Parts: sequence; C-alpha cells; structure tokens
Amino acid sequence: MTSHHNALTSPYSARLAALRAALEKRGLEGFIIPRADEHLGEYVPESAERLAFISGFTGSAGLAIVLKDKAAVFSDGRYTLQLENETDGALWERLHITENPPEQWLKHNAGGRKIGYDPWLLSAEALRRFTGVELVPVAVNPVDEIWAGRPAPPMAPAVPRGVELAGEDSAAKRTRLAKVLAEAGQDVAVLTDPASLAWLFNLRGTDVDFCPVALGYALLRADGTAVIFMAPEKLPLQTRAHLGNEVSTADRAELPAALAALAGKTVRYDPASMPVWFKTTLEAAGAKIAEGPDPVALPRACKNPVEQAGARAAHVRDGVAVTRFLAWLAQAAPGGGETEISAGEKLLAFRAMGETFRGESFPAISGAGEHGAIIHYRVSKESNRRINPNEVYLIDSGAQYLDGTTDITRTVWTGPGPAPATVRDHVTRVLAGHIALAMAVFPEGVAGPHLDAFARSALWQAGLDYDHGTGHGVGAYLSVHEGPAGISRAAKTVPLKPGMILSNEPGYYLPGAYGIRLENLLLVREAEFASQKRKFLRFETLTLAPFDRALIEPSLLTPDAREWLNAYHARVQEVIGGRLDKAGDAAVLAWLEAASAPI
Amino acid sequence: MTSHHNALTSPYSARLAALRAALEKRGLEGFIIPRADEHLGEYVPESAERLAFISGFTGSAGLAIVLKDKAAVFSDGRYTLQLENETDGALWERLHITENPPEQWLKHNAGGRKIGYDPWLLSAEALRRFTGVELVPVAVNPVDEIWAGRPAPPMAPAVPRGVELAGEDSAAKRTRLAKVLAEAGQDVAVLTDPASLAWLFNLRGTDVDFCPVALGYALLRADGTAVIFMAPEKLPLQTRAHLGNEVSTADRAELPAALAALAGKTVRYDPASMPVWFKTTLEAAGAKIAEGPDPVALPRACKNPVEQAGARAAHVRDGVAVTRFLAWLAQAAPGGGETEISAGEKLLAFRAMGETFRGESFPAISGAGEHGAIIHYRVSKESNRRINPNEVYLIDSGAQYLDGTTDITRTVWTGPGPAPATVRDHVTRVLAGHIALAMAVFPEGVAGPHLDAFARSALWQAGLDYDHGTGHGVGAYLSVHEGPAGISRAAKTVPLKPGMILSNEPGYYLPGAYGIRLENLLLVREAEFASQKRKFLRFETLTLAPFDRALIEPSLLTPDAREWLNAYHARVQEVIGGRLDKAGDAAVLAWLEAASAPI
Repeated sequence: MTSHHNALTSPYSARLAALRAALEKRGLEGFIIPRADEHLGEYVPESAERLAFISGFTGSAGLAIVLKDKAAVFSDGRYTLQLENETDGALWERLHITENPPEQWLKHNAGGRKIGYDPWLLSAEALRRFTGVELVPVAVNPVDEIWAGRPAPPMAPAVPRGVELAGEDSAAKRTRLAKVLAEAGQDVAVLTDPASLAWLFNLRGTDVDFCPVALGYALLRADGTAVIFMAPEKLPLQTRAHLGNEVSTADRAELPAALAALAGKTVRYDPASMPVWFKTTLEAAGAKIAEGPDPVALPRACKNPVEQAGARAAHVRDGVAVTRFLAWLAQAAPGGGETEISAGEKLLAFRAMGETFRGESFPAISGAGEHGAIIHYRVSKESNRRINPNEVYLIDSGAQYLDGTTDITRTVWTGPGPAPATVRDHVTRVLAGHIALAMAVFPEGVAGPHLDAFARSALWQAGLDYDHGTGHGVGAYLSVHEGPAGISRAAKTVPLKPGMILSNEPGYYLPGAYGIRLENLLLVREAEFASQKRKFLRFETLTLAPFDRALIEPSLLTPDAREWLNAYHARVQEVIGGRLDKAGDAAVLAWLEAASAPI
Repeated sequence: MTSHHNALTSPYSARLAALRAALEKRGLEGFIIPRADEHLGEYVPESAERLAFISGFTGSAGLAIVLKDKAAVFSDGRYTLQLENETDGALWERLHITENPPEQWLKHNAGGRKIGYDPWLLSAEALRRFTGVELVPVAVNPVDEIWAGRPAPPMAPAVPRGVELAGEDSAAKRTRLAKVLAEAGQDVAVLTDPASLAWLFNLRGTDVDFCPVALGYALLRADGTAVIFMAPEKLPLQTRAHLGNEVSTADRAELPAALAALAGKTVRYDPASMPVWFKTTLEAAGAKIAEGPDPVALPRACKNPVEQAGARAAHVRDGVAVTRFLAWLAQAAPGGGETEISAGEKLLAFRAMGETFRGESFPAISGAGEHGAIIHYRVSKESNRRINPNEVYLIDSGAQYLDGTTDITRTVWTGPGPAPATVRDHVTRVLAGHIALAMAVFPEGVAGPHLDAFARSALWQAGLDYDHGTGHGVGAYLSVHEGPAGISRAAKTVPLKPGMILSNEPGYYLPGAYGIRLENLLLVREAEFASQKRKFLRFETLTLAPFDRALIEPSLLTPDAREWLNAYHARVQEVIGGRLDKAGDAAVLAWLEAASAPI
C-alpha cells in the first residue's frame, strides 16, 4: 500500500532530521517515543502527543523508535490501516507491536548502542523489557525541544467535588488509606494517576478530553496527610480551602526535592503503572521502594451508596437519550439518508439535553455494516458512509454526567425488511451471553476471569467467539476504563466487590459484513439468601435502553433468559417511559412500548 | 478434647526424647519434619512416614517442628479431629496449618536459632517460606537414625510398559522433550517425580500404594539421552534392555557425582515441586539453574490416541463394576445391614473381577449420611457405621487398570421411601453443574479456572457452593491426581489441551446431615464446526454408570441438561448393558434398564 503522504511536502521528514540532530548533540544513537503522557494514562493532552508530532500516527496506542539511519513505528491490529495511511513508508518501518515487538527490533538494530528515553513516559516494567542496549534517561525530552508551537500543557482548574456527589469526604478516604499503608509498614504512597487524585481529594478537572480529571501527582502519607503537586494556577483559593489543612499543595517543580526528602522512608510505588522517573529518583534519594499497586485503585472501584445512586440517576438520563435516539433511528434508518457521523451527532444532541451532561466519556463508535466489524472503529470524514436500509448498525457510546459515567452499545437492524436468520442467530447468542452474565450469582472471592465464560458460552457452543474482553471497570464521573477489576481471561484476578461498576459487552464480528455488541453496565451488589453461610454477590444492570427485538430469535433463548429479557424491557419501559412526556414524546413512547414488549 | 494416648505408655515421648538427643549431638536446636518422601509426592512409602513415626499423626498432609522444649504438629481442616486423636497433647501443640502457619510458629518460638531440615523433603519454595531462623540442611535425617525397625525403602522392580499400552516409545518422547530443552537453551532437565520417569521411559512399578510407579530420579539431556538413578536391584535385565542404549542407569548414590559433573551447564529445575537438595547441589557444582516446571508434566497430561483408547476401555470395565455395585446396593441398602466398610469392600470385589485390574487408585471414600459431608472422609473401624434406610450415601472410589486409571463418585438415596425435596433440590443443582461442565465447548487457550464457574452456577443461584476444586488431572495408569491442569479457581492457568483427562466433580455438603458429589472423568477433545476460524475443544465423558434418578428433580434441569442426561444414560445402558450377561446378570440388567430410563 502506498502512503498518502509525500516525503517532499510532509513535515515529518524535517522533524525526523531535527530530532536526529538533537540526539546527536546529546551523544544518543536513538530515542524511544511511546504514545503516553507523564501519567501513563489512556487519554493524553495535546502537549503529550509526541508520537503524532514526530510520525503523524494519531492512534491511541503505539510507540516509535528513532535511530540514526532508520526509524520504526509500532501499533496493534486495530490500527494497521491507520498506521499505513498516516505515516510515511519512506521514513518509517510500520510494524505490528506484538508480532514485531519494539524491544526485539531495537536490540536487533541498535544492539549495545546508547538509546535515550524519557523516564516520565515509560513505567519501570515497560523499561525493563528493553534489553541489549544502553538505556539513557533524558532530563528534557528532545521531541519537545524541536517541537515548535508545542501546545502548552493544560492548565484547567481543579474543582471541588462536593460530598453530596462523592459520598465520602477526603479526610475519611485518606484515613482509610492511611490505615492500609500503616498496616503494610509503608510511610508514603506515590500517586501518579490523575483519577486517583480525583477520587482521593474529591476533585475534578477538564485537562483531557473524555475523563474529568486535573493532571497532577500526590504523595499520601501513612498519617493521612498528603501533598498534591500541581501548578499553582490549577489550584484556585476555593479548591485550596476544600482541601483543608491536612493536604498541602506544591508546584510540580518541587517534586524532585519532595522525593529527595524521603531518604530512609518506605515508599509504595507501582512499577506497572507509574513513570520510572519516580523509581530512579526515590532510589537515588535513599528511599526504600515497596512495590505495590496504586492504593487508591481498589477503594475507588468500590462505589459508595451516594456514588451508586448517582450512577443510577445518570443511567436514567442516559437511557432517555439513547431511547430517543433509537426511536429516531427506527424512523430515519430505513430511508438511508443518515450517515455514521450524523447518527453519532444525533445521539450526542439527545444526550446534551440531559441534566448535568458534561460530554462524551469516549469517542463514539458508530459503525454501519462492515464498519461494525472493526472493533475499535472511529469514523472519520474519509471513512464515513451512509447507514443503509436492511443492514446491521452498531453504536457504542457513553457520557459523562456530574453524577456518573455511562457506556452503552446497541446493535440494530435498520430495516424495513426482516433480518436474516443467521444474523438473528448471531445476535441472540451474544444476547444469551449478555444475559447469562447479567444473571450471574457468585460468592465473594470470584474474580472477572472466572465469569468471562458465562458471556461466551452460547457463542462457543456454535464455534464462535469475540477477540476482546467482556467487561471493564467504569468510574464515578471518572474514567470510562477503570481498574483494577475486569471481566476477561486476561484481566487481573481481582475479586469482585460490592459497589464495583463493570461493563457487560459480549460481541460477535463477521469481517467485511457486520459487527454485533450488546453492552450494559453492571453494578456489583450483595445477594441475599435465606440461610447463607458466606457472602454472595450479584449484578444490578444499570443501563436502561431496549435491545432490538428485530434481531432476537426467541427460540434460541432459555426460558430463564427470556424471562430476564422481558423483565428488563418492562423495567426500561416503566423507568424511561416514565421520564418521557406523554404529549411531547408521544412518538418515542409509542416506539418504546413496541420495542419493549415481551417476546 | 483429651488425648486418646497416654504419655506414659505411648512410644512417642521416648521417640521425641531420642530425636532431641540426636539434634543436640548435631548442635541443632530444632528440626522440621514434613509429611513427604524424597520425591515430594502424594503417596509416600512406609519408609518415609517419618511424621507418623515421630508424632503418631497418619494424615496425608502435615508437618511437625521439634524444638528443645516444645513441639508442634500442623495439618489442615480435613484432619482436625484425627490430629487430636492420634497425637499426644502433652507432647505436641496441634495446630491448623493455614490459621497458624508453621513458618510463623517457628520464627516466634525459635527466632535466630539453628534449625535442621532434610533437603530431600522440602522444595526450594517451601524452604524459602521459613525465615527468621538459621536453616541447616542435614546429610542424614536424624529421625531415620532413631527409627529402630524403620522399613526398608521399597525395592520393587521397574517393569517395561509396552508401546501397545503407552502409544509412543520412549525414544520418541525423549526426542520431543529434547527439542523443548534445546529451544529453551537448557542442557539438562532434572526429573524427580516418579510419574515423570514412568511416562518418559515407559516404566511402571509397585513401590507405593495406589500409584503404579517405581521410585527414582533421572536427568534428561538436550540430545535426548538420559540417565536414570535407581537401585540396581530395581532394574532387571529385561528393563535395561527395554531402556536401550540412549538411557543409562546408575545407583542413586551416584547422583551427587552426576550433578557435580554439570558445572557450566544450564539445568532445568522446578523450585515448586523438586527437593531443594538438587538446587543446592547444582549450585555448588557450578551449574546454571533454569527454573521451570517439570518438562514431562504437560506432555504426560496430553494422552495419545492409544492411551485414550485405553482409558475408554478401562472405564467400560470400571462402569460394569460400579453398575453391578449400584444394583447390589439398591437391593442391600434399604435393609440397612451393610456398613460403609462392607459396601466399599463389595465395590472392590466387583472391580477385582475386571480384566487387568491392578488395585484401587486411592483409598475409597465411603460415607453414609453425615459422614458424606466430610469431604475427605476415610472410614476406619472406629468410624464405620451402618448404611441406614432413607439416607444419602456417597462413594468416591477409583481403580488402576493396566490400560487406564479411573475415579468416580456416585451419591445414592438408600430408600425405600422417597428422597426429601430439599435433598433432590441440592442433588439436582450439583447435577446441573456437572452437566454444564460436561457440555462445555470452548476455544483453545481456555484454562480450568475459566470453566470452574460452569459447575457451580446452579448452586450459586441458590446461595450454595462447595469448598473444593471441580476437577483434577488423571493419569494413564499413573497417579489419579496429575498436573499441570485443573478445573478450579485456585488451579494454574494451564490451557486445556486435547488428550487431557480431568475429573468433573461438583458437590454440596450439609455438615452433620449429608454430602453430595457427582463425579465423572472427562477427556478433552477437539470440537468440529463447519466453518471454524480457530480450534475449539469439548469434553467426552469417559465414566459410565447411572446417576441415581431418585435424587433428581427433572423440573430443575434445563431442556438441554435433561437431554444430556437422557443421552448419557442411554449410552450407559447400551455400553454397560452390552457387557452384562443376559442370563447371569439378569437382575443387574433389569436394575440398569430402570436406572437409565429417560427422565
């Protein structure tokens, strides 16, 4: 495939030459450029889009290595085409990150040589995988040096989140965590995930798209006090007052001195998720590193009753928007006039009508026909196409409301003709898996990897499967992808706990034809039995919007599954229908009544 | 609870004193005595029953620590009562091995002191857990020194297993494994599991009860040659001829010299399953240790077509014996004259009628009523009781046949009255789980921990569960408990492979009342689908004997599960009925016809 870029007119050739000159000046023979920001998070600010600046590649996962005489850019199977389209083959080898791991490529092409890396952009674990070269940390990223017009790092203010939304004040949270640290014999914990700061200090922000965090770092001490490292302009007076006396603030520039003061202390640090800069700086300071996961991750995942109530309320508003959208689509789709982009915009507009709507929780995936089979499809002006009559259309989207984060996928048949039997067979198997997981009851101690098969069994019985996890954690007005628990064979064996919110999204994808995914969010709750010797858990489905009955083959569902589906649809009709206006929304109500009728 | 022993008359006081004197002579202040032999296997020869000799405790899992002034013996919840009954509370603290870990007890009671251990009886991992004391390996076990009349180690001959039973000759197996070693850059692999020798060299023996192995060690080299370390009297000429030129033999006494010769070599050793003696001896020799699991474990678990055919044939003979037994029990039980022991003996007698029967594969668990609720119940003369009318009776047993190893559990209602509805509810939930696992279809890559929930879901839905794994690997005329795969949340994440044989044994236990367990063996096979993009697997149920219809409530089973049960019973009737004599076995046949009728 030829590149869309022309080496003579694109800026990337000059950028690469400038970077190589900068490396030469520092005595480096190469440099590693991951797609990452200084928090190693999923959503990165524009100022950290170094991979896109140097290579042109804008995918959400990747890494480049620039040597004196060659360069390579790596990404995964989701981005094979995009990588080819966005980068110049004359400048870059374009490689699959698991089939041709960058670590091997580097060892092979630059064995023994001095290779630079930015210690803020790689975790200790990621760095450890690079072997056979001499790795040299840089104090200033050379890409930033040559990046004329680099956007300034975001400076949005961190704003307090009241206890009426957070459900627990920061002092209580810090006391809980302090006990965990003290019991583990740890003096201090490093926090680098902005979502951990957001939860621990009851703060939110707007520094990055989709996830309402303020970028910063913190040190939490075993006495419950803490210090937040954030630019002063991000911390208005009102926020400082909210933080109280036990939480001090300092500029990020003070971080090295603060770590240097930890000589002799035992400091908790996560080598998997935190920049290696913290490790080397702590070691140089004479601190003792206790490896362990971010102590905020587990308590943050277990939503308290106020957060649970917020999630329920947000899902009702989101369900109203999605229902309006589905009713609109049922009218619009058979005509064939709408496109993937216009449909996505329509849904966004319905959501924006909702109280406390703050934006999307991730870029919506709006895929018609064969585009639906591309699991992480992101429609662009170039790829946008009409939604045709009589095809499968998939839309995976979510929203941030002040009281909760949503994520829902529906797959619909555009009509007006009936859906083919094979499509209904595939959809119904996906639905059977979705329902099996939604109905699961299990004792405490069970983790996501132990439940994943419930969602796949009906597909497996037909020799079918899907190549992604079944569920990810979802935050409380925080990241739509939140650890530490997940429902997937590859997920960590973190036992599910009451209050966790996880997605339930089995799918099936027929490349070149269509994609199916049915996603609701689940809340983990205690199950109650008459004479129970141990604690059992079950799921409450939070998401409220009809599944397309045109794609369901009732005879393929067990009686229990049919009962679940009918009860779910009855609840959707009662709750969502109850929020619609009998006069103004008459058409939506009529559609909803038919869409949620029992099968 | 008072001890059954009297310190003045029992031998244990004198033995303890003698051991303490022996330790004193060596300058040791304590000694660790695990229930283990020099292969760290499950079934140990009498000569290695050091824990029973010193403490009186005969359970299959435990550990003692003897200090100058105190001593403790540890075991798990299965053996709480037995531990109290068999040991003298005046001599021993009797402790729960997980609630009061021996490592903590030792550190607390003998911190900093010189504690001896036998490096043949602890793995490197087990040893690593003992901290805070000075650990001193002994060259000769001091228990053996003071053990007057210690049985001689077993010296049964190792006998060849022909390729008509093994399915692959040793040279081919060694070539396969040599490739694995060579690819990993390993020169030699240590083998300490007698079952690994048995598989690799196509040998069997009678050194221990229940598992047909000859005790020995081996070194396998990356060129496919090997050396077996076994007493010469265990290797008759016929066996040496069978081993061929590429496999040499040496006395166990030559092992140290053989390891000393590995200086500079890379030697594969498993710190979890192999005596630490090998590690320290290899390190002293200047060998480089490559930690890795026993390379035989995975190929041994994947039975070849000849072994699979053997397993099927053995299960038919075993099914005939179990069916005769169940038919007999249906007549005998309601009368109430039989006991747990007499019933077990009856089953053994039926099995002994089968061709190539070689003995039991483990001590049968024959538990009536409340005894069935004791998961590892082993009937003794003292505990033996009548099997009463109108109660639940559980029997878990297995056999070694030359062509295969069996393991089956059936739970029956003794009658003549009907079983209570709650009992039928519990049994049917266990059966639903058994069937869900038996019917599972799954892609390659799925491991036992991912399937365990299938077997529990019907119980979980009622807030019930069982406190043991669902399935363990089973050997081919080898150990009835075989790694590396298992079906349990606690099992290793070893993907299931075609040819593996695993048990399917969900249960439910109501303490003081009854126990339920329904166990068949499963063979992993490839599943075939019309248009399949990846390899899928399914199970073939090997075990053939009816489940007690008196304990099944049909309305609690899904239509698919009922269909499975009826098809299974039809197969039992066809295959087992076909092996019975129309005239001589008329009563059994009549019982079988009724027992396997559709529900």
